[in-house]
Amino acid sequence: MQFGHFDDSRKEYVITTPRTPYPWINYLGNEQFFGLISNTGGGYCFYRDARLRRLTRYRYNNIPLDNGGRYFYIHDGGDFWTPGWMPVKRELDAYECRHGLGYTSITGERNGIRATQLAFVPLGCNAEVYQVKLRNTSNAEKQAKLFSFIEFCLWNAQDDSTNFQRNLSTGEVEIHGSVIYHKTEYRERRDHYAFYSVNAPIDGFDTDRDSFLGMYNGLDHPQTVAAGQSSNSVASGWSPIASHGLNVTLQPGEEKSFVFVLGYIENPEKEKWESPGVINKTRALDLIRQFESDAQVEQALAKLRDYWDGLLSKYAIKSGDDKLDRMVNIWNPYQCMVTFNMSRSASYFESGIGRGMGFRDSNQDLLGFVHQIPERARERIIDIASTQFEDGSAYHQYQPLTKKGNNDVGSGFNDDPLWLILGTSAYIKETGDFGILDEQVPFDSNPDNTATLFEHLNRSFYHVIHNRGPHGLPLIGRADWNDCLNLNCFSKEPGESFQTTENIKGRVAESVFIAGLFVFVGPDFAELCRRRGLTDEAEAAERHVEEMRRITLEHGYDGDWFLRAYDHFGQKVGSKENEEGQIFIEPQGLCVMAAIGVEEGLALRALESTRERLDTKYGIVLQNPPYSKYYLNLGEISSYPPGYKENAGIFCHNNPWVIIAETVIGRGDRAFELYAKIAPAYLEEISEIHRMEPYVYAQMIAGKDAVRHGEAKNSWLTGTAAWNYVAITQAILGIQPAFDGLRIDPCIPAAWDGFRVTRQFRGDTYDIHVSNPTHVSKGVASLTVDGQPVSGNVLPLFGDGLTHRVEATLG
Amino acid sequence: MQFGHFDDSRKEYVITTPRTPYPWINYLGNEQFFGLISNTGGGYCFYRDARLRRLTRYRYNNIPLDNGGRYFYIHDGGDFWTPGWMPVKRELDAYECRHGLGYTSITGERNGIRATQLAFVPLGCNAEVYQVKLRNTSNAEKQAKLFSFIEFCLWNAQDDSTNFQRNLSTGEVEIHGSVIYHKTEYRERRDHYAFYSVNAPIDGFDTDRDSFLGMYNGLDHPQTVAAGQSSNSVASGWSPIASHGLNVTLQPGEEKSFVFVLGYIENPEKEKWESPGVINKTRALDLIRQFESDAQVEQALAKLRDYWDGLLSKYAIKSGDDKLDRMVNIWNPYQCMVTFNMSRSASYFESGIGRGMGFRDSNQDLLGFVHQIPERARERIIDIASTQFEDGSAYHQYQPLTKKGNNDVGSGFNDDPLWLILGTSAYIKETGDFGILDEQVPFDSNPDNTATLFEHLNRSFYHVIHNRGPHGLPLIGRADWNDCLNLNCFSKEPGESFQTTENIKGRVAESVFIAGLFVFVGPDFAELCRRRGLTDEAEAAERHVEEMRRITLEHGYDGDWFLRAYDHFGQKVGSKENEEGQIFIEPQGLCVMAAIGVEEGLALRALESTRERLDTKYGIVLQNPPYSKYYLNLGEISSYPPGYKENAGIFCHNNPWVIIAETVIGRGDRAFELYAKIAPAYLEEISEIHRMEPYVYAQMIAGKDAVRHGEAKNSWLTGTAAWNYVAITQAILGIQPAFDGLRIDPCIPAAWDGFRVTRQFRGDTYDIHVSNPTHVSKGVASLTVDGQPVSGNVLPLFGDGLTHRVEATLG
Repeated sequence: MQFGHFDDSRKEYVITTPRTPYPWINYLGNEQFFGLISNTGGGYCFYRDARLRRLTRYRYNNIPLDNGGRYFYIHDGGDFWTPGWMPVKRELDAYECRHGLGYTSITGERNGIRATQLAFVPLGCNAEVYQVKLRNTSNAEKQAKLFSFIEFCLWNAQDDSTNFQRNLSTGEVEIHGSVIYHKTEYRERRDHYAFYSVNAPIDGFDTDRDSFLGMYNGLDHPQTVAAGQSSNSVASGWSPIASHGLNVTLQPGEEKSFVFVLGYIENPEKEKWESPGVINKTRALDLIRQFESDAQVEQALAKLRDYWDGLLSKYAIKSGDDKLDRMVNIWNPYQCMVTFNMSRSASYFESGIGRGMGFRDSNQDLLGFVHQIPERARERIIDIASTQFEDGSAYHQYQPLTKKGNNDVGSGFNDDPLWLILGTSAYIKETGDFGILDEQVPFDSNPDNTATLFEHLNRSFYHVIHNRGPHGLPLIGRADWNDCLNLNCFSKEPGESFQTTENIKGRVAESVFIAGLFVFVGPDFAELCRRRGLTDEAEAAERHVEEMRRITLEHGYDGDWFLRAYDHFGQKVGSKENEEGQIFIEPQGLCVMAAIGVEEGLALRALESTRERLDTKYGIVLQNPPYSKYYLNLGEISSYPPGYKENAGIFCHNNPWVIIAETVIGRGDRAFELYAKIAPAYLEEISEIHRMEPYVYAQMIAGKDAVRHGEAKNSWLTGTAAWNYVAITQAILGIQPAFDGLRIDPCIPAAWDGFRVTRQFRGDTYDIHVSNPTHVSKGVASLTVDGQPVSGNVLPLFGDGLTHRVEATLG
Repeated sequence: MQFGHFDDSRKEYVITTPRTPYPWINYLGNEQFFGLISNTGGGYCFYRDARLRRLTRYRYNNIPLDNGGRYFYIHDGGDFWTPGWMPVKRELDAYECRHGLGYTSITGERNGIRATQLAFVPLGCNAEVYQVKLRNTSNAEKQAKLFSFIEFCLWNAQDDSTNFQRNLSTGEVEIHGSVIYHKTEYRERRDHYAFYSVNAPIDGFDTDRDSFLGMYNGLDHPQTVAAGQSSNSVASGWSPIASHGLNVTLQPGEEKSFVFVLGYIENPEKEKWESPGVINKTRALDLIRQFESDAQVEQALAKLRDYWDGLLSKYAIKSGDDKLDRMVNIWNPYQCMVTFNMSRSASYFESGIGRGMGFRDSNQDLLGFVHQIPERARERIIDIASTQFEDGSAYHQYQPLTKKGNNDVGSGFNDDPLWLILGTSAYIKETGDFGILDEQVPFDSNPDNTATLFEHLNRSFYHVIHNRGPHGLPLIGRADWNDCLNLNCFSKEPGESFQTTENIKGRVAESVFIAGLFVFVGPDFAELCRRRGLTDEAEAAERHVEEMRRITLEHGYDGDWFLRAYDHFGQKVGSKENEEGQIFIEPQGLCVMAAIGVEEGLALRALESTRERLDTKYGIVLQNPPYSKYYLNLGEISSYPPGYKENAGIFCHNNPWVIIAETVIGRGDRAFELYAKIAPAYLEEISEIHRMEPYVYAQMIAGKDAVRHGEAKNSWLTGTAAWNYVAITQAILGIQPAFDGLRIDPCIPAAWDGFRVTRQFRGDTYDIHVSNPTHVSKGVASLTVDGQPVSGNVLPLFGDGLTHRVEATLG
């Protein structure tokens, strides 16, 4: 069942009912200012850090769900309603929500008034701009009233929702003309305020929530809106809001438009005040002036569209499969931008107060983002590396405002360092910028203790080598990629964090996954050594990689698949010998990606075991059989009910590893089958089961052992986006950035005739046509560029900024 | 304007409209299990710790306010409603809420059905019991349906409201017969579960929130209730709830009754399971069996009433002033019990996740509670003292579940140690139990490092002596009683905690308040030394007290009032020399309570200055003039808008210090005037201004500089309760526990003819009649017990368990 449809020409998803199976959201903003907005207008916005600089309040898991956002109430002769249906929920004569790239437009119509609210964050602005259009579609004059509404958060979202004995006494506002300023705590240590403006004289306002709503009324029934009259309340403590009241007379067919700006301003210490107690508004007024007219708004929106058109033109496919094209050309790269920006901080499942930027997460996120804006990926790599410790270990997270390591979570996730090698080499392959390796980068954010980025990678590499267990496999530490496999934790205390508790000391628990990852990224590290003239180091690295490959086969293979780990007692995890959790997905993916056991046929056997034991119609589950009880020696993974999350859920992040692994052994049909199983555009028709947005990946789909098999959760912020982007664009379609140029090596379903990809790469554009006349899955039989044959499968670099025509024939 | 009235005979406050100016709440439970319940049925419950063991979800500062609780929906032929008005808000034909001592009864009537929901926590039970009665008041048969509703919290209230990427996948329930079991995380480390039962066969149930409500519906419109049919949903993740569906046919005039039990069960590790995955329900069923019949419920309620009657009979007044009598006899001691139980953890302003038991708070709270259940006060004193450090300093808070010091907040509040002396001496004065001083008590919760409680007091006393500044006054540390006067903080970082930041090192900032407190409690410490035969130590202590008295007069008096402090630079705080914050209330109260400057007339002058500069019609503000801007050297106090909280709000906690101070200088009229200004029963008629419950104190009333002067906030959990109880019962009415017996020393308005107090004390009962034939304020001219004259004003101890008649004549 569908609740909307894709509009590929406008790069939009069009939602045709407000009653989606879950709020279907979009993100606004690409730089410093961000907003989340649902298909009914719910959500909130923040400046840089969703916890510390939240502009508007949002209540997660509320009743009703998704109750709170930027609302525009229309009062029309006693009746009142909201164009997004929520929160008033008055039935609409027409409804449509269009989620575009960085903007959302919601249209509702009722009783002869059509209202459209467009929301976006203009490029270069720390503000959300809303354009609200009201059109009289009836035959009679309409004397309507328009009321805006947002509720301010007192900046720190965690404190805002807990510290009422203080916060209910601190709220302060100023009202000047049509602008409402929120200045809580500005009198003390803050140098920032928020404002909400409209480009028209107002007929009233409200800034005190109770006065606007009535104390026992919900957002579905503000007393002022019901009465058609603002109360001109001035907040003093309690809950400051901003609401403009506007009288709007519309002749038949007439349309009027209003522009609202919700902005964030920082003032230098010396320019904080205009006069004692009165904030300096210069910067706010400058910002407001940029959006005084519809023309200015439309220009800014056009600029945003151009921006996205530019980003998306880096890699564009024509395959003949609309679903594939819209994933590759629009929604998957769009989600990659969002995950790059947000890490795991703010979604409708991540409350914005819990998590910083992940060391591991961010390195993976940039795999799917680096081709869009390489300069930002470069900056991110430096930021991440700057939190690394001297011994090569790493803070698991860092805070976006300070960019310092998060002490609450700390270190000890032994896969973390390797992801820095992967992220950096992906950046260099995209850009050819080997110079990044010479950058001086701090350890633990200490500017007095730096080394080259290359040296950071070196420490990463040897952190694994120096931390190995009884079998020579890497020690797992607190956890590896699977944060819930906690082999040194042994927690008996309810609520104790599985991630930060490491109460078992000992160097026994080993991770086969980290071994696979090491063998996967090791050759890139060796190659970087070689290119720096460090031949001995390169060869040493290669010896380590080969040794790890050998050890993995010797101690990390269980007969028909790769083991997952050895626990604190040296017992196997993910083995036939186990009663539950006999086979895990992660090592099957990563080890085969690293080509371990390919020659020996063990890789193929592992992937066949994966198919037999882990595959379902909705994707591959994480392990099987699920844990039916809590295992003290395994940790959080066994804390989930069977079929959910890491306990045998379809954890989408690791599915592309198997997809890529399948391409390593040349099985294009199987690879694409797995791709289509979890790619959201292919799930649109089962939205009533899947429930999440059909345009973005979710972190998890309930596995076969779950009550709600097929139901997704935690949409948007997941490494799934980046890895599936890599899987489809590089592994299946086979357009692969390499150190010396673009490699062409598709692995596709044999039935395909071919496809076309336009790829911008290092300043040139490659117009690539892959044809598959003999219907194979893999193997480039011939390759020409601009009509000239190419030996091997790496395209030459031209550096002329021109478009070059590539013909690749499989066979 | 009133929204209800007192029913003194039933010890209830009767609320006659659900539309109170703020939710007016009550507390259920006295021991381990607690609930908060509002006049519309909102609120939540928890076991011992409101953060870590919360049974039901509650969303603070929600829209609508107070939306969520234990609701009972009545479906009556298509129409549906709730007896407490909220959340359905269907208009009622009749409404009444009776908040009693430990129970609340809400009655609503609509269209011929009268429904009453009674809620209480029976003594000795870890459960809330609800008795719901439905009566057909019409002339026709009613085929109604009753739906219960509660929403489970996943135990840790902080995690429950932030960690959705995990929590929405963990929820688990079992349903057996009429009992719904909530067992989220029981499969792993928890040994506790919750259940919700009803004593009748059910016609349906729901345990999945979305299924019960419909995803976009509020609590005002559950789809199952609207349809009149439970959906029999079984929660698997998302949000587990419990709802019973009951078909109820009522003949005209017929009443039916149902008993619901919402309970908390802990199982020993070995008895967790009945069979694999199925929880052991033995203990739950045992508990349920205790409340199967109305008779059992009524018996339990009667037991609770008896319990409260017993507690309140310890001190009972007949004054002829109903307001005074109900404060002294019912509501003030009731609030003292609640503050003793809750400290500052869970109210409608304290979110239950932020604060542990305060070292300072709890010592003060027991001043108002110790006569009720001295054994619990004794236990609390030991708990508090056990967190003290060896050097006499103290953790500022400790956690109720572990009873260990709270490291997040730490130490450094230099008044803390002195409150332990005050609390302990109040306990000994009440009980005569000097033996408590010999108890071995740990330092920093270390059982291997203990000392006698007396030694703890000794360390407390000398912690002040050893930590003095340039003037010989006590160093303030992070803060003294006024947590917001942060003289060693100098915070420039938004959101940084003023209480835990101590970034200025130096031993300069001094507190005149701590000096006053030292002189106030010092003589008690000296007396305890003397009674242990430590004459030298007693004399040394007295010398320290006298020296501090001298220093306070020399360096702590500013000409017309006591100074507040010296800041980090040695500059005066609370002085004529300051531009703002020239005079503070705290030292005027405490120093005069310690009788500093009484002989010299400086105490009188300080209290006159207090009247002139700080008094308002709603109480005495904290300081004046308010701080109009942020002072880096003063801290949080200057972070509040003028007139609110510590920045010149009427901070009710310190008003009784001035009341007591007035009795020290013999001004009974003034003392009682100040008492009546903030005593809630006297504010009932201005409830529309005051807004908070007219039966309990609030922490703060907005001061004269505030926009909302007279509006209260933070009701219930405040040291105001205990101190006002001390002020009225001991200082004004003058019935004072002393080490050797009850002292009689009233200080009353001269116009009073007298009053009667019944006081149970150390096993005896004193029936005290104070007469005031010559209309003085103070001075006992004659005193007889059982007709025998008494010399001095301390009543003899009889130890015979009998009632003794006391005649005291003022003059």
